[in-house]
Amino acid sequence: MSRPQPIEYADASPQVRAVFDDIKTTRNVEDVNNFWKYLARDPAGLRRTWESVKQVMAPGALDPLVKEMIYVAVSVTNNCDYCIASHTAAARRAGMTEAIFCELMAVVGMANETNRLANGYRVPIDPAFEG
Amino acid sequence: MSRPQPIEYADASPQVRAVFDDIKTTRNVEDVNNFWKYLARDPAGLRRTWESVKQVMAPGALDPLVKEMIYVAVSVTNNCDYCIASHTAAARRAGMTEAIFCELMAVVGMANETNRLANGYRVPIDPAFEG
Amino acid sequence: MSRPQPIEYADASPQVRAVFDDIKTTRNVEDVNNFWKYLARDPAGLRRTWESVKQVMAPGALDPLVKEMIYVAVSVTNNCDYCIASHTAAARRAGMTEAIFCELMAVVGMANETNRLANGYRVPIDPAFEG
Amino acid sequence: MSRPQPIEYADASPQVRAVFDDIKTTRNVEDVNNFWKYLARDPAGLRRTWESVKQVMAPGALDPLVKEMIYVAVSVTNNCDYCIASHTAAARRAGMTEAIFCELMAVVGMANETNRLANGYRVPIDPAFEG
Amino acid sequence: MSRPQPIEYADASPQVRAVFDDIKTTRNVEDVNNFWKYLARDPAGLRRTWESVKQVMAPGALDPLVKEMIYVAVSVTNNCDYCIASHTAAARRAGMTEAIFCELMAVVGMANETNRLANGYRVPIDPAFEG
Amino acid sequence: MSRPQPIEYADASPQVRAVFDDIKTTRNVEDVNNFWKYLARDPAGLRRTWESVKQVMAPGALDPLVKEMIYVAVSVTNNCDYCIASHTAAARRAGMTEAIFCELMAVVGMANETNRLANGYRVPIDPAFEG
Repeated sequence: MSRPQPIEYADASPQVRAVFDDIKTTRNVEDVNNFWKYLARDPAGLRRTWESVKQVMAPGALDPLVKEMIYVAVSVTNNCDYCIASHTAAARRAGMTEAIFCELMAVVGMANETNRLANGYRVPIDPAFEG
Repeated sequence: MSRPQPIEYADASPQVRAVFDDIKTTRNVEDVNNFWKYLARDPAGLRRTWESVKQVMAPGALDPLVKEMIYVAVSVTNNCDYCIASHTAAARRAGMTEAIFCELMAVVGMANETNRLANGYRVPIDPAFEG
Repeated sequence: MSRPQPIEYADASPQVRAVFDDIKTTRNVEDVNNFWKYLARDPAGLRRTWESVKQVMAPGALDPLVKEMIYVAVSVTNNCDYCIASHTAAARRAGMTEAIFCELMAVVGMANETNRLANGYRVPIDPAFEG
Repeated sequence: MSRPQPIEYADASPQVRAVFDDIKTTRNVEDVNNFWKYLARDPAGLRRTWESVKQVMAPGALDPLVKEMIYVAVSVTNNCDYCIASHTAAARRAGMTEAIFCELMAVVGMANETNRLANGYRVPIDPAFEG
Repeated sequence: MSRPQPIEYADASPQVRAVFDDIKTTRNVEDVNNFWKYLARDPAGLRRTWESVKQVMAPGALDPLVKEMIYVAVSVTNNCDYCIASHTAAARRAGMTEAIFCELMAVVGMANETNRLANGYRVPIDPAFEG
Repeated sequence: MSRPQPIEYADASPQVRAVFDDIKTTRNVEDVNNFWKYLARDPAGLRRTWESVKQVMAPGALDPLVKEMIYVAVSVTNNCDYCIASHTAAARRAGMTEAIFCELMAVVGMANETNRLANGYRVPIDPAFEG
């Protein structure tokens, strides 16, 4: 068997169920996303990843919508289908409107273009940026 | 001669000077960044790129600080040294504090990690994200 | 016709069949993977790529399982669906257990995260690493 | 000030020093790498990242040398200068010989090549890999 | 609703229709590709992107076939399914033969391999390339 | 010692010298680039890589200038400093003018932008591209 298989709550070990329960409570959802069901093949990795995501994505100096948009920007740049779908959905739940989504895409597209122009022209860093 | 060379204002054609002048006025800076001096080898590209950047980065549904942070997120993911340096500086001018920068990096790092976990576990997109 | 089409053994030229035969013998398989059937559009490229893969993936200073895991690590980082599927399967045939797969993913995810933290914080290389 | 600055042990807060101390003890080194000194701008991120790295890189189903080689494979694919330098050094300390390094590079290069051939030829995944 | 939806000509605003009409005239096609129908969610972005693409892809110092092949090379390297499919089709319309396609893929694969060998061996730039 | 070291002709084994001689003859150069001197740590890899590069980059359905430009496009997309420098130089030797270089960069930048727009808007492939 080559393809990883998900673990549903009903089949999960107590260790995995504890993480699933915390995800459901923290996010106020009925069930966890596929991402967590697949990661459950690795209970220690599931716990570590969830604890890190929970800490990193909690409100802090940045609000949750901005954090989700940054997640989308990275996922679009990396072309990760699953992550684009799941974090676009999360950003919409956090308040992303159609107009915001379009501006986000415009910035992500532009940044990917100018990144390559900077590479290709071999532009040296301005001393002012190094202070 | 292999390496592209910058064009300084004093040596620029009227077409290039017009773009440089608009950049300086729009951004209220004394001189343009190296990026524009190198791109000036291609006057039509310089104009097109500047017009696009000016339009995309103008305040809209997203405020300028959020746009600069998205630019940084993409540049860090692509590992473009010049773009990381210039857009980190721009984000700081737009109000990015040390605490915000650290949170931004944490989200970018986490997104790059979970993008690969989603790839490697070959996680299918949840139907709820497709609606 | 836009989409490349595979070449099956029955339709292959003698030159392509010779490569297919060598793949089947070397790997002790009934048929070659889709990868080789598509690459067969370019008989010279098929031969060159197979000869290179055969040489690079042969046991040497590294054992075949480690080589397949490195292949998976690169493919996950690049998000190449086909390569993730085919080399995960190959790694399983070479002895990769579920526990090993999970640890592999954890390292790949972590490396992609810290790569971006190093980029974003613009960490200079320690002199000790340059000796 | 645009460029992030490192925090040396002498200037670190007790929270940061506790992490630095654990790194030094765990790795039996005199001082921590630049990576940790820069990440110390974000004490919570420093702790979370170190705890994750310590857990992921500990011996388990894979030995430390294999883990370091996978780290190098990802870093080379992402072109992260700092990470290539630091994890190549770590791999050498873990026993990577010149011959192993050369084989590692050969596999990483080959994987990056065949990833793109699979993309460009749009190779569909073999049913056998999906079972 | 998470997933972006396309805008068909019949449902498009006059602003979007004007761009669609220009695409159809310029390319002499019956209907625009999905790419433009999705981008139409952002009318300003649609116009800006089309104006840029039209300018950049027009015959100039490089002929259209070469430009399309460069587009394919980038899209294959980034693993963008849509872009690989659409620009491979465009390149074929511009005269790309099977033999040219195969050579293109061979160069793209080789470049991706040697890029990583240069990274991993940390090869310094020859002074001759810097003049 | 962490950092790979080059092997100069005077210190090279007969096996390495034979490859260096073939590079010098084929390219009509006085000395080989740093790339080959570093790869010489792996004599079998040096030979395999050179034989592949020689075969792939030879004139065929595509002329050498187009092949070098494709190499540059990939290297700029991957942000490989060494490869950008060396293949830009090679493209100039093969006839790339300043105007061609600027057009090449414009296409590479545009492709990197639209790749991300296609990703982010999750554009499905048009049936016409699949025939």
